Amino acid sequence: MIRTLVVGFGQVAANFVVGLERLKSGELEPYGVPLAGYDFGVGVDEVEIVGAIDVDERKVGRDLASIVEGFYGFKNPPRALREVYIYRGLGGEWVKNIFPVRSEEWGESLARVEDLFSELRPDVVLDVTTTQSAPAFSSREELEKAVASGSAAPSQVYAYLALKASKRIGSLVYVNLNPTPVANAPAILELAEQCGCIVLGDDGATGATPLTADLLEHLRERNRRVYSIAQFNIGGNTDFLSLTDEKRSRAKEDTKSSIVKDILGYDAPHYIKPTGYLEPLGDKKFVAMHIWWESFNGAVDELVVIMRINDSPALAGLMVDLARIGWWLKSRGVKGTVYEVNAFYMKKPAPPGSRNVSRYRAYELLKEYLGVK
Amino acid sequence: MIRTLVVGFGQVAANFVVGLERLKSGELEPYGVPLAGYDFGVGVDEVEIVGAIDVDERKVGRDLASIVEGFYGFKNPPRALREVYIYRGLGGEWVKNIFPVRSEEWGESLARVEDLFSELRPDVVLDVTTTQSAPAFSSREELEKAVASGSAAPSQVYAYLALKASKRIGSLVYVNLNPTPVANAPAILELAEQCGCIVLGDDGATGATPLTADLLEHLRERNRRVYSIAQFNIGGNTDFLSLTDEKRSRAKEDTKSSIVKDILGYDAPHYIKPTGYLEPLGDKKFVAMHIWWESFNGAVDELVVIMRINDSPALAGLMVDLARIGWWLKSRGVKGTVYEVNAFYMKKPAPPGSRNVSRYRAYELLKEYLGVK
Amino acid sequence: MIRTLVVGFGQVAANFVVGLERLKSGELEPYGVPLAGYDFGVGVDEVEIVGAIDVDERKVGRDLASIVEGFYGFKNPPRALREVYIYRGLGGEWVKNIFPVRSEEWGESLARVEDLFSELRPDVVLDVTTTQSAPAFSSREELEKAVASGSAAPSQVYAYLALKASKRIGSLVYVNLNPTPVANAPAILELAEQCGCIVLGDDGATGATPLTADLLEHLRERNRRVYSIAQFNIGGNTDFLSLTDEKRSRAKEDTKSSIVKDILGYDAPHYIKPTGYLEPLGDKKFVAMHIWWESFNGAVDELVVIMRINDSPALAGLMVDLARIGWWLKSRGVKGTVYEVNAFYMKKPAPPGSRNVSRYRAYELLKEYLGVK
Amino acid sequence: MIRTLVVGFGQVAANFVVGLERLKSGELEPYGVPLAGYDFGVGVDEVEIVGAIDVDERKVGRDLASIVEGFYGFKNPPRALREVYIYRGLGGEWVKNIFPVRSEEWGESLARVEDLFSELRPDVVLDVTTTQSAPAFSSREELEKAVASGSAAPSQVYAYLALKASKRIGSLVYVNLNPTPVANAPAILELAEQCGCIVLGDDGATGATPLTADLLEHLRERNRRVYSIAQFNIGGNTDFLSLTDEKRSRAKEDTKSSIVKDILGYDAPHYIKPTGYLEPLGDKKFVAMHIWWESFNGAVDELVVIMRINDSPALAGLMVDLARIGWWLKSRGVKGTVYEVNAFYMKKPAPPGSRNVSRYRAYELLKEYLGVK
Repeated sequence: MIRTLVVGFGQVAANFVVGLERLKSGELEPYGVPLAGYDFGVGVDEVEIVGAIDVDERKVGRDLASIVEGFYGFKNPPRALREVYIYRGLGGEWVKNIFPVRSEEWGESLARVEDLFSELRPDVVLDVTTTQSAPAFSSREELEKAVASGSAAPSQVYAYLALKASKRIGSLVYVNLNPTPVANAPAILELAEQCGCIVLGDDGATGATPLTADLLEHLRERNRRVYSIAQFNIGGNTDFLSLTDEKRSRAKEDTKSSIVKDILGYDAPHYIKPTGYLEPLGDKKFVAMHIWWESFNGAVDELVVIMRINDSPALAGLMVDLARIGWWLKSRGVKGTVYEVNAFYMKKPAPPGSRNVSRYRAYELLKEYLGVK
Repeated sequence: MIRTLVVGFGQVAANFVVGLERLKSGELEPYGVPLAGYDFGVGVDEVEIVGAIDVDERKVGRDLASIVEGFYGFKNPPRALREVYIYRGLGGEWVKNIFPVRSEEWGESLARVEDLFSELRPDVVLDVTTTQSAPAFSSREELEKAVASGSAAPSQVYAYLALKASKRIGSLVYVNLNPTPVANAPAILELAEQCGCIVLGDDGATGATPLTADLLEHLRERNRRVYSIAQFNIGGNTDFLSLTDEKRSRAKEDTKSSIVKDILGYDAPHYIKPTGYLEPLGDKKFVAMHIWWESFNGAVDELVVIMRINDSPALAGLMVDLARIGWWLKSRGVKGTVYEVNAFYMKKPAPPGSRNVSRYRAYELLKEYLGVK
Repeated sequence: MIRTLVVGFGQVAANFVVGLERLKSGELEPYGVPLAGYDFGVGVDEVEIVGAIDVDERKVGRDLASIVEGFYGFKNPPRALREVYIYRGLGGEWVKNIFPVRSEEWGESLARVEDLFSELRPDVVLDVTTTQSAPAFSSREELEKAVASGSAAPSQVYAYLALKASKRIGSLVYVNLNPTPVANAPAILELAEQCGCIVLGDDGATGATPLTADLLEHLRERNRRVYSIAQFNIGGNTDFLSLTDEKRSRAKEDTKSSIVKDILGYDAPHYIKPTGYLEPLGDKKFVAMHIWWESFNGAVDELVVIMRINDSPALAGLMVDLARIGWWLKSRGVKGTVYEVNAFYMKKPAPPGSRNVSRYRAYELLKEYLGVK
Repeated sequence: MIRTLVVGFGQVAANFVVGLERLKSGELEPYGVPLAGYDFGVGVDEVEIVGAIDVDERKVGRDLASIVEGFYGFKNPPRALREVYIYRGLGGEWVKNIFPVRSEEWGESLARVEDLFSELRPDVVLDVTTTQSAPAFSSREELEKAVASGSAAPSQVYAYLALKASKRIGSLVYVNLNPTPVANAPAILELAEQCGCIVLGDDGATGATPLTADLLEHLRERNRRVYSIAQFNIGGNTDFLSLTDEKRSRAKEDTKSSIVKDILGYDAPHYIKPTGYLEPLGDKKFVAMHIWWESFNGAVDELVVIMRINDSPALAGLMVDLARIGWWLKSRGVKGTVYEVNAFYMKKPAPPGSRNVSRYRAYELLKEYLGVK
């Protein structure tokens, strides 16, 4: 049994816990779970949700079944979710303009959350809090100072506390799925190695970015010269709402843009950004992308890609794999981070300084690492 | 020096010879030549056009420079093309409604073209004649009967005669880039093995099909369940005109459709066809594709791809590689056909019965085969 | 009360009867009913379904509620539909390969259906049978011969019989919404005038065609020179299935293509056709359109339109208006056909020889004719 | 002869002067000139460029032929342009980060430019300076203060000076084609009426906005309920570069967004903005638009529009009409502004407070006003 804790209980987490339970009950096919068809010794059935952490006071203390129904409209939520609860997270400065949060003295907050990790004893922590911008702390001192002062981003603080708690409860795997540098923060990575823990991240690779990576790889393999790439994204979920804040948007933009040079080998002019918030679109965002290039003998070709995609379920599907893979890594005594896992599942694969490769390549690397065919 | 002969001098061949000479003179970057950046011991400079074969009487006997300028609008054609000529091909029953051809007794035709191969002594023959439908002859007897009676498709006859001529002039490589089964005809393949020759094919992988293959691979790697695929193609070049003939269209459709099951592992409902002819579009076709699927937790996503692509230069770029690879194979004494080459460059990779893999995978296989990194 | 009879009970009719009853009960807003916001003296409440005619033996004799639920998946169908029935139509030669029909001597069929019209006493007949191809009969003799022999298209026969029945039951309005020439058949139009009846048609203007008309008008008003137009349509409903039959496809193609010259004033090269059948798309078809043109100072612009549209509800929405307008015309003693109505609602507006105008223009004409602002 | 002066000599002006001269010499068809086919008594031949005003020091004092060739790549510019010159404009604070400008005392600048108008004696002034944001001055005092202090936008100052000069040189027509409120500034409009002049504007209706207007009209006429509209624009010309400045972007956004409520009758949620700058796209911008709506019986439809359009030539084509119409108005002694002209050619039609109507409707109004059929 893989004790799994979710940090940040929004649309993604709701899709994850509902989808997972429906998978386990056989009600649903495992579509959207990349390695569902491969056996590396850890089944979907082994993943068990032990709790969730959130700062929205309307959710704290309630069971997951009532939340997924009341907030996210899932009718007849799986029974299993009635006995799993939401625990109060860390302050809520970052999101207090989005929903009601409770004030608390910061030091108290830190102590309480560290205890929470100790009590829930997770094997795998899946962080799906909303996008936050913060530096990738290099030194332990800097990090601890930023944690203590409250200037580090929530994901960094959660990771720090989880790693600290691991001294009491044993090794765990922290998976960071938002763009905040966690697995890419040298100080956190170093800490993980010292604790015998694993940190995976950053920024779950869903939406248009993985497809863009593979389209660019397709062009590169034909030696076509890309003139420019424009990519627009617009959606109506909390993630897009929070990206209207410019600082957060920049964090996202960086992880999205790095693929161009990494894959093509040159920095083709590009505009790749989350563009706006439009409430009626909900969780099914609209993406438009334009790429054009020079082919043989001076010919100029053009490609437009249009998508309507559900961001949250896509990420939730990856979480099912990541919980299983996390367990697999833990049971093998791996420490630090694992590029072969991050390269496929993350937009900004750790360790810091790693290159993005095409998702096709990453998929091969992943399967090889896990020893599946 | 790689003696290269082109069969079928249309838009593709024109782009090939112009682009190649411009590459050799350093006037052009090798965009659209997949392996331009890899060194496997055979340079682009070594490819030399020794002639072209065609049945259009307006072209026969003229030099390539005048043809590419007069028929295809290339201003200031490379000087080197002034000394390469077009030789009369085989009858022309298949295309007589498209342009003027000369009548000739069939047996005479066969003898004349066989002699032509002997005189021109090609190392590599690149067949870019227009789409033709014909069976994939299994036995030598069937094939020879069909050649003698004129019922085999021109590409099959050309390949047969080239292989026959090889007894006089030594081993050669026949590369068939149209959908007619040549490398996929067991009888021709067997003949190639006996002659110590190589046959590559069939149907050059340009246009929307390779991209579709890689998009499907992208979906498969995420275990998304594809509901359906619709793909339309419309263009204004001779190839589209000839596809308004239903029999030819079917040949094309088959090579295009096989990718769905080969890559996804199940036969998702699809409609993938060259759709129509619209003269003003010229060589830059319009492609529209719709794919939708089920992702995690029942979510339904949708993707639309729109392209304006120049078919002919894209195929011409592959020909530069194929001439070099052909020579590489010949110089190593390879016989028969080579799946690792066909899998990347062809829509229907020989030997018969081979599966289509994603182009990403095929690219890896190809580089491994050639020993490049 | 407007006694309304539907001929052909498929997806369109199902949407019409369900939507109408939901409108009347106030459960639904009248979206998709063009003149819902205009008062010309005839309310939606006045439209009453008195029955439907079909040849599918699985439907004949059953009530509409059970059909819309069983065949078209509408849960909790409106109660009112439980007391309206499906009556057996005319033979079924045209559709016998699609669903089970009953054989009957043709003369008997004709007499029975004529009686049916007399018994049901419709004010308005809405013909939404599937696409059929047949000539636009010019003379009464030709028409009557074709009706008697069974060579006329079903819609023509139904119209003929309805007009004949009008002698017994008084004036009625026959609205033909499929591409078969009915209102555009001079012989039927003449008959309508003699009977004091009204015939509206042909081919309900939904889907991509009206939008194409308005896009072309937009270009014409800026004097842009259109180079070419490509339009693809693919869907999974019975209509698309039946269009895989080439003869029917041609009927459709003609009504679609005529707009180009009518609106632009010159016959820009175009490819506008229902393209194929792909079952999973169901009633929500996929449309892709490409238009490009020359603008000022030689600039070349390009437009691509992509749609996912539900054909059947769109047509059903027009039927609500047409029933009301039909009654309005009848109550004013109009005879023959009315261009101002057809021009907006039909792809091939009668009387024969009429020009297509942009839908914007047609909308103005319609409102003026009805005296609404 | 219509003495025509261009203010702001960039890509649009270059296309205008080249296109106009090519039209006059019969070298070009008048594509992209909306009323080219209608005779209202003023021919294209009568339009004569008497000069252009700009602040880019690299252009000032040079002839138009050398500028269109050197800056905009038009080979063999029309001879007539060799004898028309560029005169120095007003300061250049707004654009000094984009190209070199000359410093000058502001009061001197004002006097010099007023004299310039007096010397060049234009009948029609076409303002195609780059986007600037400024208030729509209501009172004469405010306006004059802002002009004197340099806080008014350049277009407002140019208009003010031109109107002032008209006292010496007689009535003229000032046409403002950028989003700055000029014809929509009550103070300027009042001034025009007092001087017997005409002010047309604001913001030339090219690009995606007019098409959006007509698509929305199309939906409204079918009573479809629009859920949301997303529209992205990206390009590589100076206009897009200057829009990366947020203040300017807002000016643009306002004129673009007002169409939604004006045409639909309700404020459907929308995101309509110039999105970004991507140099390789040049003057041919990429536009992507998503609209979805509810149709009859609860059906949900979806539309995506993709465009590659050349902004500058499109606007230049409208300028040809506006010069002719300007003259026509002047010769009839019209004063102030004319809604019927603005409604078709402008995104924010004056007088202030006017509603946007669909372009179809505006086109009808325009033709009626000019008395053409």
